[in-house]
Amino acid sequence: MGRDNKYHVSFIGSGNVAFHLAKNMDASGVIIDEIYSPNRDNRELLAKALNAKAIESLASITATSDFYIIAVPDDKVKEVVSSLPPVKGVVAHTSGITPMSVISSRFKNSGVFYPLQTFSKQREVNIATVPFCIEGNTEAAAEKLTALAGKLSRNINAVNSHERKNLHLAAVFVSNFVNHLYHTANTLVEESGLSFDLLLPLIEEVAAKVKTLSPEAAQTGPARRNDKNSIKMHREMLNPHPDFKALYDLITRQIIKQYHE
Amino acid sequence: MGRDNKYHVSFIGSGNVAFHLAKNMDASGVIIDEIYSPNRDNRELLAKALNAKAIESLASITATSDFYIIAVPDDKVKEVVSSLPPVKGVVAHTSGITPMSVISSRFKNSGVFYPLQTFSKQREVNIATVPFCIEGNTEAAAEKLTALAGKLSRNINAVNSHERKNLHLAAVFVSNFVNHLYHTANTLVEESGLSFDLLLPLIEEVAAKVKTLSPEAAQTGPARRNDKNSIKMHREMLNPHPDFKALYDLITRQIIKQYHE
Repeated sequence: MGRDNKYHVSFIGSGNVAFHLAKNMDASGVIIDEIYSPNRDNRELLAKALNAKAIESLASITATSDFYIIAVPDDKVKEVVSSLPPVKGVVAHTSGITPMSVISSRFKNSGVFYPLQTFSKQREVNIATVPFCIEGNTEAAAEKLTALAGKLSRNINAVNSHERKNLHLAAVFVSNFVNHLYHTANTLVEESGLSFDLLLPLIEEVAAKVKTLSPEAAQTGPARRNDKNSIKMHREMLNPHPDFKALYDLITRQIIKQYHE
Repeated sequence: MGRDNKYHVSFIGSGNVAFHLAKNMDASGVIIDEIYSPNRDNRELLAKALNAKAIESLASITATSDFYIIAVPDDKVKEVVSSLPPVKGVVAHTSGITPMSVISSRFKNSGVFYPLQTFSKQREVNIATVPFCIEGNTEAAAEKLTALAGKLSRNINAVNSHERKNLHLAAVFVSNFVNHLYHTANTLVEESGLSFDLLLPLIEEVAAKVKTLSPEAAQTGPARRNDKNSIKMHREMLNPHPDFKALYDLITRQIIKQYHE
């Protein structure tokens, strides 16, 4: 902590994750020292909003922050770790798929600060419920990262690199892949001149249902019932959309296999 | 309406949809006259709960209800329509995929009463927000069905058979197929000794996000970024699960095609 008795954090990155973490830290009394990003507009906008300094070159980052949060695309973490100058604070990345070793091999105080959530700049997130998955290369580093996460969320979890990688893969299924199904449905209803809004209560309930029922118990629909007539009709309706039909066929086959074979 | 100035409804079916519609109608002051179902336990349980009469044979259903709601599996609607005795009330089915003609060819006052929602007996649904898709073979039938739906929900929509069929197909994508992805993720996290609960805030946010952003704008993740290293690692992790890998490959290819080709 600084003389002001507050956590000081610098960010490497100014994308969706950096944006939401930095804004919410600032809102909870953490001081954002510096923000580095190769994207000039993004770093200056974010730095200005948080009363932080925008940094043009990684080499010039100040070494006095308590934490350095590397929030860059997964495939850029290694590169950033190797070009970051030596610092005393805890260096952590926010990547689900990148092992801690990528960072702990270079920094004595390091770890992972992975928020298991989807972030878009256009949309506020309720940070207090976001599961933070924390890993430290020492107990002290883990404790510090846990304390920092505690400024943001009530949902803090010790998760090692192997577990985190599996969690990240599962997250792709329930997040990016689910969203792709929403996109598919959106295309279908818009073609019929209907509004996607009609589907929103269903979307909400399907997501809420698995809070109290397992996905296996929650399943319904033509494939669950092995209703061959409905499936045949759906497949005919999808003829103009070979990609949607391929999705339909694969998932329908898997559901039938799960419940009827 | 009966002499009691209340709507009287009889149900054919005692599955998930009949269960929720009948219970919610009863709760809103509608009188449930009779319940027919080939499943003895289900019909007696539901009839008892709603102070209705359980009917053992369709032929013996009383002809004095205002509405006869056929809430049976999609592939059973035709059969029920042909064995229902003549009645004066409005006969409507609740099937997304079955055209109104199946019912209007036999009944003068008929239509469709399709609630666009997923129902499981173990779980209460907020019926007031469920979109009801109404179609009538006459204006009078449509008006009556609209009034009945209005006892349950604020979200009433005039939807013809062609539109409803498309809506039902889209609903399969955002409901049954999404739930299958939840099942996949559940299997993956449980294998790693982690709890599915960790994914719930993400699941909720992905569903909430498309209330304010289009699914196209809401997309994030490795395929959206065309992050080849993450995708390669995920594919290797999925080797023990050929079905999950097939899903991963198909959806990842479609997202990359959408944003990068």
